[in-house]
Amino acid sequence: MVLADMKQDEVRSFIDDRTIALLPVGATEVHGDHLPLCTDVFLAEGVTRKVAERLGQDRALVLPSVNYGQVWSLGLTTGTVDIPDDVLVPYLVAIATSMHRSGIRTLAFINAHVGNNAAIKSAMRRCLDLCDLKTYSFTYPGAEEVISKVCVSHRPHKAYFHACEIETSYMLYLAPDKVDMSKAIRQYPDFPDDFDYTPTRWTELFSTAVLGDATLATAEKGRAIIDSVVDNIVHLLTKGE
Amino acid sequence: MVLADMKQDEVRSFIDDRTIALLPVGATEVHGDHLPLCTDVFLAEGVTRKVAERLGQDRALVLPSVNYGQVWSLGLTTGTVDIPDDVLVPYLVAIATSMHRSGIRTLAFINAHVGNNAAIKSAMRRCLDLCDLKTYSFTYPGAEEVISKVCVSHRPHKAYFHACEIETSYMLYLAPDKVDMSKAIRQYPDFPDDFDYTPTRWTELFSTAVLGDATLATAEKGRAIIDSVVDNIVHLLTKGE
Amino acid sequence: MVLADMKQDEVRSFIDDRTIALLPVGATEVHGDHLPLCTDVFLAEGVTRKVAERLGQDRALVLPSVNYGQVWSLGLTTGTVDIPDDVLVPYLVAIATSMHRSGIRTLAFINAHVGNNAAIKSAMRRCLDLCDLKTYSFTYPGAEEVISKVCVSHRPHKAYFHACEIETSYMLYLAPDKVDMSKAIRQYPDFPDDFDYTPTRWTELFSTAVLGDATLATAEKGRAIIDSVVDNIVHLLTKGE
Amino acid sequence: MVLADMKQDEVRSFIDDRTIALLPVGATEVHGDHLPLCTDVFLAEGVTRKVAERLGQDRALVLPSVNYGQVWSLGLTTGTVDIPDDVLVPYLVAIATSMHRSGIRTLAFINAHVGNNAAIKSAMRRCLDLCDLKTYSFTYPGAEEVISKVCVSHRPHKAYFHACEIETSYMLYLAPDKVDMSKAIRQYPDFPDDFDYTPTRWTELFSTAVLGDATLATAEKGRAIIDSVVDNIVHLLTKGE
Amino acid sequence: MVLADMKQDEVRSFIDDRTIALLPVGATEVHGDHLPLCTDVFLAEGVTRKVAERLGQDRALVLPSVNYGQVWSLGLTTGTVDIPDDVLVPYLVAIATSMHRSGIRTLAFINAHVGNNAAIKSAMRRCLDLCDLKTYSFTYPGAEEVISKVCVSHRPHKAYFHACEIETSYMLYLAPDKVDMSKAIRQYPDFPDDFDYTPTRWTELFSTAVLGDATLATAEKGRAIIDSVVDNIVHLLTKGE
Amino acid sequence: MVLADMKQDEVRSFIDDRTIALLPVGATEVHGDHLPLCTDVFLAEGVTRKVAERLGQDRALVLPSVNYGQVWSLGLTTGTVDIPDDVLVPYLVAIATSMHRSGIRTLAFINAHVGNNAAIKSAMRRCLDLCDLKTYSFTYPGAEEVISKVCVSHRPHKAYFHACEIETSYMLYLAPDKVDMSKAIRQYPDFPDDFDYTPTRWTELFSTAVLGDATLATAEKGRAIIDSVVDNIVHLLTKGE
Repeated sequence: MVLADMKQDEVRSFIDDRTIALLPVGATEVHGDHLPLCTDVFLAEGVTRKVAERLGQDRALVLPSVNYGQVWSLGLTTGTVDIPDDVLVPYLVAIATSMHRSGIRTLAFINAHVGNNAAIKSAMRRCLDLCDLKTYSFTYPGAEEVISKVCVSHRPHKAYFHACEIETSYMLYLAPDKVDMSKAIRQYPDFPDDFDYTPTRWTELFSTAVLGDATLATAEKGRAIIDSVVDNIVHLLTKGE
Repeated sequence: MVLADMKQDEVRSFIDDRTIALLPVGATEVHGDHLPLCTDVFLAEGVTRKVAERLGQDRALVLPSVNYGQVWSLGLTTGTVDIPDDVLVPYLVAIATSMHRSGIRTLAFINAHVGNNAAIKSAMRRCLDLCDLKTYSFTYPGAEEVISKVCVSHRPHKAYFHACEIETSYMLYLAPDKVDMSKAIRQYPDFPDDFDYTPTRWTELFSTAVLGDATLATAEKGRAIIDSVVDNIVHLLTKGE
Repeated sequence: MVLADMKQDEVRSFIDDRTIALLPVGATEVHGDHLPLCTDVFLAEGVTRKVAERLGQDRALVLPSVNYGQVWSLGLTTGTVDIPDDVLVPYLVAIATSMHRSGIRTLAFINAHVGNNAAIKSAMRRCLDLCDLKTYSFTYPGAEEVISKVCVSHRPHKAYFHACEIETSYMLYLAPDKVDMSKAIRQYPDFPDDFDYTPTRWTELFSTAVLGDATLATAEKGRAIIDSVVDNIVHLLTKGE
Repeated sequence: MVLADMKQDEVRSFIDDRTIALLPVGATEVHGDHLPLCTDVFLAEGVTRKVAERLGQDRALVLPSVNYGQVWSLGLTTGTVDIPDDVLVPYLVAIATSMHRSGIRTLAFINAHVGNNAAIKSAMRRCLDLCDLKTYSFTYPGAEEVISKVCVSHRPHKAYFHACEIETSYMLYLAPDKVDMSKAIRQYPDFPDDFDYTPTRWTELFSTAVLGDATLATAEKGRAIIDSVVDNIVHLLTKGE
Repeated sequence: MVLADMKQDEVRSFIDDRTIALLPVGATEVHGDHLPLCTDVFLAEGVTRKVAERLGQDRALVLPSVNYGQVWSLGLTTGTVDIPDDVLVPYLVAIATSMHRSGIRTLAFINAHVGNNAAIKSAMRRCLDLCDLKTYSFTYPGAEEVISKVCVSHRPHKAYFHACEIETSYMLYLAPDKVDMSKAIRQYPDFPDDFDYTPTRWTELFSTAVLGDATLATAEKGRAIIDSVVDNIVHLLTKGE
Repeated sequence: MVLADMKQDEVRSFIDDRTIALLPVGATEVHGDHLPLCTDVFLAEGVTRKVAERLGQDRALVLPSVNYGQVWSLGLTTGTVDIPDDVLVPYLVAIATSMHRSGIRTLAFINAHVGNNAAIKSAMRRCLDLCDLKTYSFTYPGAEEVISKVCVSHRPHKAYFHACEIETSYMLYLAPDKVDMSKAIRQYPDFPDDFDYTPTRWTELFSTAVLGDATLATAEKGRAIIDSVVDNIVHLLTKGE
């Protein structure tokens, strides 16, 4: 069920101890010339929708999305919005604790933007301390295993990739009408040796926000990874039952 | 143009000194059994869409919505999310100043939830001090004049109404498929004399969050008021030109 | 009773569950050439004194005044002091919760400066959450009804007036020796159309802080309005008994 | 000149580089059964008035008082208000920096309550960093020298005294009508050895807030000390000229 | 050079644009029965000392250690100190910006406790924004490569290990007199499936804070890894020269 | 016992209700050309060590030092680190409350830097309010009495001295290898009359941070004072038993 559309009587009778609230957390951040600025919102919402379907209409409660996230590395690019961690954390905590007040006992942050992870981690710990709310943070859990099987481009960096074969494939599967593959490029910047150890704006390294090879993206690759991610999330949320 | 869907090259070439950014600000709050919890989000987005159309594709930049707002009076109801002012203000400021960094010189908060007004006012002043960004706050400007002409129910309170003839009419015009008129009710609680002077949770007065007579709502009334509101916003944003 | 003058044994034996603490909240802000900078302090104290008399010596506890408030619109004028909301709110909360610790169960903010309303509202909600203290905020309750009868000048703005027929009449009634009617002026600036929707320093519109027609002020008008306001406050504070 | 009473044109023409703003800082705190709760406010105002007279009408600008201060040791007594340091510091900074914006180049905190000293010290340093405002903090400068000559009671503690021969004498000189000498007592509690080294509420040691011998107070002693204090303040504020 | 021991004239003449300040960042956290609570302090100091030797006496400036860090997972164990991120970040920023004020242009956090990484990352970004200070964060850079060669125990978790073959080997190399190998144990708790996705106190899983096999630790393994880590740090700090 | 070196099983069995935790609090601050920058750390640690010896191995728990403190007066000198009070207070509170969670019921801040006193005082009060932890603050208690007997130089200021006969004697007793008496000087700056009343950076008065006569320092003087201080601390911590 989608909270945004529910009526007061519906939400009252819907929530019980088994309800799992799903909060899509995205960002507004440039993703090259072929993907939209809210790529991470569309992906978080897409994964959330699929998880909700699997959990079932009587159990999953999809919350309105958080459309703005923490974006430092690309924070100075035109169109990008950056919510600093010390602003984002209490915002997430306010949403989650309001849900707890509504009777929710389990809430999962379905996150599509790596930059949000530190804020979500802090928020989860604070929720536990404040009201013993059980929270989860899922940023494509288990994706790497499938990526290594279905993706063919080499990775631009040990940890980072962006608007590339992987993310573009996600979009081609989850929101294909928002992708313009004719603008897809490959870009492998030279990272300075100290890139992992000193704060570096990505805009010092490249101007179009693609990190990897977007031209190799396909909906099939996206489907393979995302479906597995959804499996993993559903498994983790329900395994003890 | 909708920022969420724009690509990096598009947003780069789009923004100039004449661009007006429109930020829909709503809330997740119960609105009775006939209106959805994100009524204020749908209304803010609906007004924003119409303002954007009037400003023109080359000028209006519609930002992703703020889906959660400040809700104290109904803050303890199931399903409602409350973002306290001291959390909401820096969140709004971060969005607006990021937009300023992107070249935006004028930003309008298109707000549909009265409870957000204090936070928006603080945020606007802070934006002015921080970076001289010109901001506007529009919560149905000029609506009262039309309401007094087209609405027939008496008002439940001098200042407050909620999920009533007015708001329901807005929804019937802007998001009719999300309204269930068969559940619409009229409700006129007795307000204690000191209601305006001491903090009072509405839930002490009534359990279904309707304040006024929703049964009298029509799309025509909504259209009359909203179209006038849109006129007013467009006039205010462009009058000096 | 005036807390400032009470001795330790007196305050100990005075406070009980029926005691009503009255906190005058003013501001230090220019009010034209005919009214003093602490006009809002003198008015808050004047109203408080009259309310206290009516509540009776065994019940009303007049607290020391808050002499500085939130002043943004005139915040850049010489002599004006601006306490930002995020500083003023915890200051008011500290006073009120200290009073609660002293046994006070009801506290009324007697406010004479509209700019303080947002801070007082936040403070009241926080007091309720923190310690269940019952608080009231009174900024001339019911004044409008009498103003429309006794005042003759047209209003400079739908919501705002300042140092005008109304406020000057209050002063002529409550603190006449602090008024210099020979300097009273009338001033009706042209408000830009967007004045209500965008943060605007009043000093962009006029240099002497008079908004309306101060020349028409009389002590009689002040008495009529203030006496009614006092009636209203006393009624609201005692009606349930 | 008293800022509270000044009109807008007066304050505009009054302030120049030589103006010295004097801010009385007091507290609302029990002072035994013979002194009023706002003893520290009356004393701060009394000293300020005398300093202002000496500096001259064309130079001294007396600001409205800060009526509430930091009170921890007696913070749990009925009637006492405690403003924590982290609330008081920004409040003082807001006042001082507003004055700086008004053209003030020198501001003296005339403080009568030792508990405020830490907050004032922090505020002064912050003012210096923020806007290079020259500030002074005066809490009876040079009083000890005269006290040792004119006071006869032995001191209850190396550093602390309260509502005793000293403070009561100040009041008999500066605000005699607010003193009830018939209730004056002497009280020398046994301080535990670790009193100076561990936070101790005074209320653990005695219930009436007198520390020393109030019965020996006289207006003459108060005059001797206060007049010397005023001399010292005036000297310090003007010596370089 | 060790800042703690330097005299005022020495530090004045020492610091120039080429100086690299090294700040050891540790934690006070239980590390099983065979390692001391300040293991992470000793390791951070040990690595720092070796880096300093390699950079040379005329260039490296070793700062006093930060002995307390962010410890959530083991935060409830006896003896452990937890500094929350929002307290640790401004503490680190104050140290680093003070150093910048002293003329330092490059500062490296030599960190030995993974729990500090989020705080250090935030601090580094803030330093860059505040004063353009170049900072590095080094938590055993490049260790994994050597670990995979010299360590033989299987890893208890994809990302986490603690007081195990790896850390114990570091200690046997850098601070052998503080290790009691007779108490070394191996411990491989069963991690719940959702361990990586929901905040989990380690104390729910095991009581002695060993994660892995400490019995296999040797000074030689420690030397191999740490010497390589030191090489990497020195290379990263000097490579552009 | 030294917490830094204790193992998990040791700390678990060590702490009981009689344990006294000792936290050395120092600063990193220039102390002239003859004393090291961490003079206050070495002194705090030296006093702590002696107190611990006297309390006995089964009772005293020496915590890792706080190496950075609040330094405003010398805050702009090369090499000095300043932690503002609002950063230092929560850092100290986090350490103390973590210790309370570990079972500690008494904690003493052994402080060697006067600039830390305000922060420690705030931290102690907050610990009392938060968890009823009994804390002490000792900054050379009772030193003055011995100083007046054994020291011969006249004092440079009523309250302040620095890196002088007193502090240098402490160092010659507690950390003699870190003193270079050949660089010891005497320095008696002229303090402006208003020095005690207005924030003044010491660097406006003198460039080498010596306040008094360091040339007269001897280890014997240091021993006399420090041994007495240690006596006093031990007495205060154990007197009620």
